[in-house]
Amino acid sequence: MTTPDFSLLETVRLRRPLVHCVSNIVSAGDCANLALAAGASPVMAQAPEEMEAIAAASAAAVLNTGTPDEEKFQACLLRGQAGVRLGRPVILDPVGVGASPWRLERAEALLAAFTPSLLRVNLGEAQALLHQESQEQGVDSPAAGTPAQRAETARRLSRERGTAVLLSGAEDLVSDGDSLWKISGGSPRTAQITGTGCMLSVLCGVFAAVEEDILTAAVTAAAFWKACAHRAEALAGERGPGSFRAALLDAAGTLTAKDCARETQRL
Amino acid sequence: MTTPDFSLLETVRLRRPLVHCVSNIVSAGDCANLALAAGASPVMAQAPEEMEAIAAASAAAVLNTGTPDEEKFQACLLRGQAGVRLGRPVILDPVGVGASPWRLERAEALLAAFTPSLLRVNLGEAQALLHQESQEQGVDSPAAGTPAQRAETARRLSRERGTAVLLSGAEDLVSDGDSLWKISGGSPRTAQITGTGCMLSVLCGVFAAVEEDILTAAVTAAAFWKACAHRAEALAGERGPGSFRAALLDAAGTLTAKDCARETQRL
Amino acid sequence: MTTPDFSLLETVRLRRPLVHCVSNIVSAGDCANLALAAGASPVMAQAPEEMEAIAAASAAAVLNTGTPDEEKFQACLLRGQAGVRLGRPVILDPVGVGASPWRLERAEALLAAFTPSLLRVNLGEAQALLHQESQEQGVDSPAAGTPAQRAETARRLSRERGTAVLLSGAEDLVSDGDSLWKISGGSPRTAQITGTGCMLSVLCGVFAAVEEDILTAAVTAAAFWKACAHRAEALAGERGPGSFRAALLDAAGTLTAKDCARETQRL
Repeated sequence: MTTPDFSLLETVRLRRPLVHCVSNIVSAGDCANLALAAGASPVMAQAPEEMEAIAAASAAAVLNTGTPDEEKFQACLLRGQAGVRLGRPVILDPVGVGASPWRLERAEALLAAFTPSLLRVNLGEAQALLHQESQEQGVDSPAAGTPAQRAETARRLSRERGTAVLLSGAEDLVSDGDSLWKISGGSPRTAQITGTGCMLSVLCGVFAAVEEDILTAAVTAAAFWKACAHRAEALAGERGPGSFRAALLDAAGTLTAKDCARETQRL
Repeated sequence: MTTPDFSLLETVRLRRPLVHCVSNIVSAGDCANLALAAGASPVMAQAPEEMEAIAAASAAAVLNTGTPDEEKFQACLLRGQAGVRLGRPVILDPVGVGASPWRLERAEALLAAFTPSLLRVNLGEAQALLHQESQEQGVDSPAAGTPAQRAETARRLSRERGTAVLLSGAEDLVSDGDSLWKISGGSPRTAQITGTGCMLSVLCGVFAAVEEDILTAAVTAAAFWKACAHRAEALAGERGPGSFRAALLDAAGTLTAKDCARETQRL
Repeated sequence: MTTPDFSLLETVRLRRPLVHCVSNIVSAGDCANLALAAGASPVMAQAPEEMEAIAAASAAAVLNTGTPDEEKFQACLLRGQAGVRLGRPVILDPVGVGASPWRLERAEALLAAFTPSLLRVNLGEAQALLHQESQEQGVDSPAAGTPAQRAETARRLSRERGTAVLLSGAEDLVSDGDSLWKISGGSPRTAQITGTGCMLSVLCGVFAAVEEDILTAAVTAAAFWKACAHRAEALAGERGPGSFRAALLDAAGTLTAKDCARETQRL
């Protein structure tokens, strides 16, 4: 059974792996700060000209296609192919892929060019990739779906695309097409902050940089992020989303492996 | 008489309208977080290829031309035209339009291609659009001007461009070319944080998404933002701009319609 | 002997110089907020089309080549040449220049086209520009190096490139190729936040905007930033990197010249 392996947090903090992030103008700063807080060393770069060189130096890649343009999709394509060729983990986060036919078409082109190690999506994004009717409305308030619908969607997406899937939401689901792992906990306030999905994808890259089994890395990333959100809720109290946002980073920078294990057992 | 209608805040939180923001690399994260805090669902996108599709899905558009390049102006042009064609509100925020002849020329091209529902500007930007000599110095410390000069500028800009104007500053002015509404309150600390003008424009889009009368939407957005700033000043105390910035978001996420009404009566 | 001149902080707050920043998607917001907190007026712009006009209006330029693309390098080239022609300070921050051969080649092209007033680098970036083997690993966790190695690197880079150098780290070094000034203090937590190097470069531009001697401006910027970090550590306590990040801005917005002088004597 795949369970969170919080000893990976100690490995990350010891090795400080270089994690390459292609990011977006909304959450790039938060993503870099989260990678640092978790103990990794982020490199934020998205020029097609340097994807090959940065792939060679990085332990993992997180390709986030938010606020996209043609050049960024081109960079992601080159970077994804390089990562696969090198045998290193590539996380793909096709932000708001259902927002337009162009975005979907470009994301499909990526998936045709390489198979990522992990697809990190919310329900609306998964439905768009499955060409299902979606109730998605904006990247930050995706359709919730029933538990059964969500489980079926995660499994189907994994099978259709031949890759592991992390479908995030109030309950996160990780699937390899057959099995399904559920990660609960966290805080409903996570949905009130932009970029928390992008940040979860970065954590997947951080843990995948030190753990070969992508399912374990994804489950650990999800469980760590839920633990951070739960801690942040306690830290920020009723103060509001500005405080909760800072508290998420505080939690990520101070939670230990032991804290996370305790947090998860509590559930 | 147009007065703030804070019941719109409840409508926004109920309907969660999709508000499309073309943003900039400085304030995109703060803008998305503010839209979420107010209760809307932001979609941040600026590829010309997807403006048409996103226009069709969105209740309102906020076109911010900060840190511009040719491609972003092209996206704003397509998006503005699509919004007008669909009969949905389009807010134009021509950030630092007086910073260079190129920027002014590109902004004029936008205004020639479509008429926005609302122009959200500071005094320096208004003067640049009126081809007046400006004392503007950077987007964050615009010339203050006398009350009479500001009122005349708001009215003239509205008449010349044939659109409603929200001229922000220590006192915000909304004009339809004839009438003028004044919104005071807030906090002088707002000027010490970057992007607070961009964020006000986002709020205009958020309220315009649920209120047909653009003047009411603009006056409500200005009054809500002043209430947030006043609350944030109390929350952050003397701690400094980092705390004030987080407190602005805390205030936006926690103030209720009743809080805002009470705040406004107090003035 | 060059020592920090904290009276420059008062001059900045009085004159509010316009400081033009070419920035990146990771730290643009933090950089603009820091410039405001220090008392300057930032203008964030990077379209090649407007570099000439903005150069004419600005007191100083800070060219940061993080998250680069060809167009940004082109903007930096035009902006650097314009600044030199006008005789105004140009700070170059070649972020992560060792990350790829392309990035190094483009940075070298900038240095061939104009000589900046100051190169602001960390050890890994300095080593890349000197074509030395680097242990750099990501822009946020650069190789530390021995004190002797760092001193030699700062001096050599200054001589080879014919410009002043600020080599930042746990101890900051400023060199004109012969002399060397050391600025210690600060907080180890600075390394846990992304963009603190970018922010230091912005401060160099802020002080250079009001002080002709670039060495004094650089030493003052470094000492001010160390004072901010020390104060922020006290403000944030053990809360974590999210709180430390906000506290850095709080410190920059509230520290006076007298506070900084007291802080520096303490060391």
